[in-house]
Amino acid sequence: MDLSELQRITETTYGERDRQRGVSSAVAWLAEEIGELARAVRKGDHSDRLEEFADVLAWTASLANQTGVDLNEAITRYAAGCPRCGASPCACALD
Amino acid sequence: MDLSELQRITETTYGERDRQRGVSSAVAWLAEEIGELARAVRKGDHSDRLEEFADVLAWTASLANQTGVDLNEAITRYAAGCPRCGASPCACALD
Repeated sequence: MDLSELQRITETTYGERDRQRGVSSAVAWLAEEIGELARAVRKGDHSDRLEEFADVLAWTASLANQTGVDLNEAITRYAAGCPRCGASPCACALD
Repeated sequence: MDLSELQRITETTYGERDRQRGVSSAVAWLAEEIGELARAVRKGDHSDRLEEFADVLAWTASLANQTGVDLNEAITRYAAGCPRCGASPCACALD
């Protein structure tokens, strides 16, 4: 799925209700989903991980929709390699 | 950009070094980036938001790569509407 399609389906399914909740609620929900993803990675199974990655993507897209961000425009930052060193593979010092 | 391409470029640029850091480090970095995104949404400008959304997508993809998750498979959860009520727009009670 293209990032623009991810934003489109999220808008169609949740746009109106997510705008009712507001941007701060979207940030809070995204943080909650990151916590659930962390748990699924640590002790969940593959099915749990699929579900939590999907939820993180959906809330990221909803937050982008509410803040006027085009995720395809955003990701151009990584399209030509590491944004810091410009190389791919990245050649930055390992921090 | 398709989610498979997002995973591919993240693997090419960061796969080896992210595996050196390990899954727990990827979770920690993703959490850090969510914090930076929250700040950019609250008080940053459009350019800050583009950067932080990109970083969240890149770390989400890196964590998916390290845990064997195909983000396109994951997002099928939302492809046909809300996974809870099945409708689009979602018709769940507002929580």
